[in-house]
Amino acid sequence: MSRWEPNTRERLMRAAVAEFLDRGYESVTVAEITERAGLTKRTFFRHYADKREVLFAGQEILTRLFADSIAAAPPEATPIEAIGAALDATGEEFGPERREWARKVKEVVAGHSDLRERELLKRAKLTAAMAGALRERGVGEPAASLAAEIGGLAFSTGFARWVEPSNERGFGELSRAALAELVAATASLG
Amino acid sequence: MSRWEPNTRERLMRAAVAEFLDRGYESVTVAEITERAGLTKRTFFRHYADKREVLFAGQEILTRLFADSIAAAPPEATPIEAIGAALDATGEEFGPERREWARKVKEVVAGHSDLRERELLKRAKLTAAMAGALRERGVGEPAASLAAEIGGLAFSTGFARWVEPSNERGFGELSRAALAELVAATASLG
Repeated sequence: MSRWEPNTRERLMRAAVAEFLDRGYESVTVAEITERAGLTKRTFFRHYADKREVLFAGQEILTRLFADSIAAAPPEATPIEAIGAALDATGEEFGPERREWARKVKEVVAGHSDLRERELLKRAKLTAAMAGALRERGVGEPAASLAAEIGGLAFSTGFARWVEPSNERGFGELSRAALAELVAATASLG
Repeated sequence: MSRWEPNTRERLMRAAVAEFLDRGYESVTVAEITERAGLTKRTFFRHYADKREVLFAGQEILTRLFADSIAAAPPEATPIEAIGAALDATGEEFGPERREWARKVKEVVAGHSDLRERELLKRAKLTAAMAGALRERGVGEPAASLAAEIGGLAFSTGFARWVEPSNERGFGELSRAALAELVAATASLG
């Protein structure tokens, strides 16, 4: 991979989402995306398997960030504290520009059931990666899987609040608040 | 739908799984499945969108059973008690013949990443249905989503233990035990 790769990936992502919003996800071809980006189809397919994957490329980076942050938490951190650290690290990556991008992707995904399914699947993979990272820290089962599900819910809830048009708070703060609400709710399940 | 439909669906399911195990999931065509079942392709496509769906048809019935059982639980039942009732109801459906079937499906699914993805997705839909049924009972958020994730984990853990070759215990008992372990684990997350 050349040192220009990240820029190429980003140009393709921006061109794709702009096309999807202008003309509808279904009707846009890879050729139209690459034309808008000023790149070739061959370049596109070096970076993405298909036009759908462009929308979810960020989630793979996120999955790695979560797993790495859980691994890097202090040895004495509880499972919930390790997940909190991962939400903080994600919050540092999620600036205002990223929020604009997330809102656009959300708009495209909301209109298509196969994209919503893809999103569910990526969420399941994020949760599986968190559970794996917790087990690596010596957390047993079913605590690791349970904490990972709580982390996944904190992530989605925080994310949904973060992309709300009226929201001005940061992702780290919102997802930390969601995590605290979930921990409090464990006492109310009977 | 005629009164013979359930039998037709089941014949197609059995023929499909027998073919998949004999000759490999990838290479089997719908024509080969219908030939083995003594039915037409037209009949197949009236019941299933594609050969993959044959493997997951049972999960949609299961999702309805879960949602209905949660709705039917006594009004005073806590979220975890309502989920326990749904696991009991599922246990009554899961007899020894069903276990043989589940083992065969598991063997086919394990060998293909797209089938494993489909399974993750159906799991996500089961969890979403449980959360919806709990909200209908007046359980607030995030408690409803959290209880549903715990129910989903109890289901998968119980299911995995149930299909183990050495297992002789029933699904209801195994999944109830998994639910109790999960509830106990909520205290250990910090």
